[in-house]
Amino acid sequence: MPEPPRFLAACRREPVDRPPVWLMRQAGRYLPEYRAVREKVSFLELCKTPDLACEVTCQPIRRFGLDAAILFSDILIPVEAMGMRLEFHEEHGPLLPDPLRTAGQVDALRVPDPEATMPFVTEAVRRIRRALPETPLIGFAGAPLTLAAYMVEGGGSRHFVELKRLLWSDAAAARTLMGKLTTTVIAYLKAQVAAGAQAVQLFDTWAGILAPADFEEHVLPYVQRIVTALRPTGVPVIYFVNGAGPLLGHMRQTGADVLGLDWRVDLRVARATLGPGVAVQGNLDPVVLFAPPEEVARRVGELLIKGGGRGHIVNLGHGILPDTPIRGVEAMLAAVRQGP
Amino acid sequence: MPEPPRFLAACRREPVDRPPVWLMRQAGRYLPEYRAVREKVSFLELCKTPDLACEVTCQPIRRFGLDAAILFSDILIPVEAMGMRLEFHEEHGPLLPDPLRTAGQVDALRVPDPEATMPFVTEAVRRIRRALPETPLIGFAGAPLTLAAYMVEGGGSRHFVELKRLLWSDAAAARTLMGKLTTTVIAYLKAQVAAGAQAVQLFDTWAGILAPADFEEHVLPYVQRIVTALRPTGVPVIYFVNGAGPLLGHMRQTGADVLGLDWRVDLRVARATLGPGVAVQGNLDPVVLFAPPEEVARRVGELLIKGGGRGHIVNLGHGILPDTPIRGVEAMLAAVRQGP
Repeated sequence: MPEPPRFLAACRREPVDRPPVWLMRQAGRYLPEYRAVREKVSFLELCKTPDLACEVTCQPIRRFGLDAAILFSDILIPVEAMGMRLEFHEEHGPLLPDPLRTAGQVDALRVPDPEATMPFVTEAVRRIRRALPETPLIGFAGAPLTLAAYMVEGGGSRHFVELKRLLWSDAAAARTLMGKLTTTVIAYLKAQVAAGAQAVQLFDTWAGILAPADFEEHVLPYVQRIVTALRPTGVPVIYFVNGAGPLLGHMRQTGADVLGLDWRVDLRVARATLGPGVAVQGNLDPVVLFAPPEEVARRVGELLIKGGGRGHIVNLGHGILPDTPIRGVEAMLAAVRQGP
Repeated sequence: MPEPPRFLAACRREPVDRPPVWLMRQAGRYLPEYRAVREKVSFLELCKTPDLACEVTCQPIRRFGLDAAILFSDILIPVEAMGMRLEFHEEHGPLLPDPLRTAGQVDALRVPDPEATMPFVTEAVRRIRRALPETPLIGFAGAPLTLAAYMVEGGGSRHFVELKRLLWSDAAAARTLMGKLTTTVIAYLKAQVAAGAQAVQLFDTWAGILAPADFEEHVLPYVQRIVTALRPTGVPVIYFVNGAGPLLGHMRQTGADVLGLDWRVDLRVARATLGPGVAVQGNLDPVVLFAPPEEVARRVGELLIKGGGRGHIVNLGHGILPDTPIRGVEAMLAAVRQGP
């Protein structure tokens, strides 16, 4: 039997020759070849055209030889399939012009059949697997709280007043919304796995805005349901939270195979807190890639030592920034390959 | 001898009848009487007119009978005195049109004499003490890293790329900048204490954007210098960080008498981590004040239990938001006065 790719081995905390590395948002605007594709199509068209989604997924693998590919898509694609209008604006990111503010709007949301409503996603997964037979492919979804944040706020937000107002003043509507999102995410991720995704990442970018007690009530049970539902598929589940530091114990309780951490938590402290029973992913500050290459190398060396080797997937602590210099990425990857 | 006000007693971890309460940014736009003053003058004029700064400082004390007043000013006032142009725009907040990007610009910064360059600040302190003889007055300053963030970015920022680029690619300029800011902050806070401030708070709003290792290098030594320099004055020092969760141990090392915590860390966990030798301040999510009054009361009751009474100053975990309903503040204060 051939050895499993080091990314999948690391997800399962098996021994590896060196920690695998990939980058959140690795198919993105920092790459000139990505910008060349985006010049011709809108962001949503790119997400919905399997040939193009496959092409931009492959770009960073071809250029850098990363240890995993991740489906090119957006976490809000299933939200559109649930019945909400979705737009993307170049400067401001996603906009949902009819934000959820009432129980009636929540009740009207559909729980979509992924193959019927988002066939372009599973088709992209199949094409990527054929195009990159050697590289493990990660599927993904937004986690329920993070999707709810966009849906209720109508886009990005600074203080999430509307989301929290819903959570704290209409518990029934909040539960209905989170339940529908959970069911949607489970079906969506299962469809990606059925189409060939070999791991899945659940992005909970905004879960870190909550106090721990609110995380326990409004995040944990839903993420646990998703992790449990995916277990029979056999693929590892990665759970990423931005602002993970005070939530490590809670994240551990999700049952995810791998916990994705932002850069504001020390990886040695995180591993000591989490124990050996879970793998970790991260957690270089994305802004480090703007530093001189020798500083990038020094910090990656420290990260590898703090990560402890086994069960550590090297990544940034958040998505790569659009202006990131390519030489920063190259310095990071060279340092991972060289070892601590 | 009369008993010390409960705010000052709590700062020193002395027994109190109940935990004191004040609100970060308590003199602010959520108050109609504040908006009435601001209709007539710009934000900077308000900061620089002692009569008006005194008036708005007193407003929340008169309305709510809070346990401490805090000087009305802005953390960037000393930055202007250091020689940088400073503007405030209604929607976007502070703007520094000539951001610091070179070592030459850093070298050109002055270390200002507070009484000579910012006499309106100490004059406001004196007037507030006369206007509110019964209420302890908190002076304040921005901490060096947070001031540096505004100076280098030229205003608010999302990713702080320019600040981190300076810290990580020009260590000498970064040290010079942080040194000048530290000296400036020490003189500025000492002048406030000399004018009558009975406690000081150091706002390190942006220190939480750094990884712990970067906090150790670029924050901790400077804050330690400030705390040490203020010790002979005898006034308690409160050190606030937004995103304190992963940095509790580091914050403890500053030597501050009180640590101000944002809402994303559980107060019970924080007190257990910090130990009994330091007081804590916080940490209700400011958005809780938008919830129904009974929900506010429930959460404040939990907070009082987690805070453990002695050495706990009740506050929000960040500044009160401009749209906050007054009834939310009233519900919070009633719950503090009622007790857990």
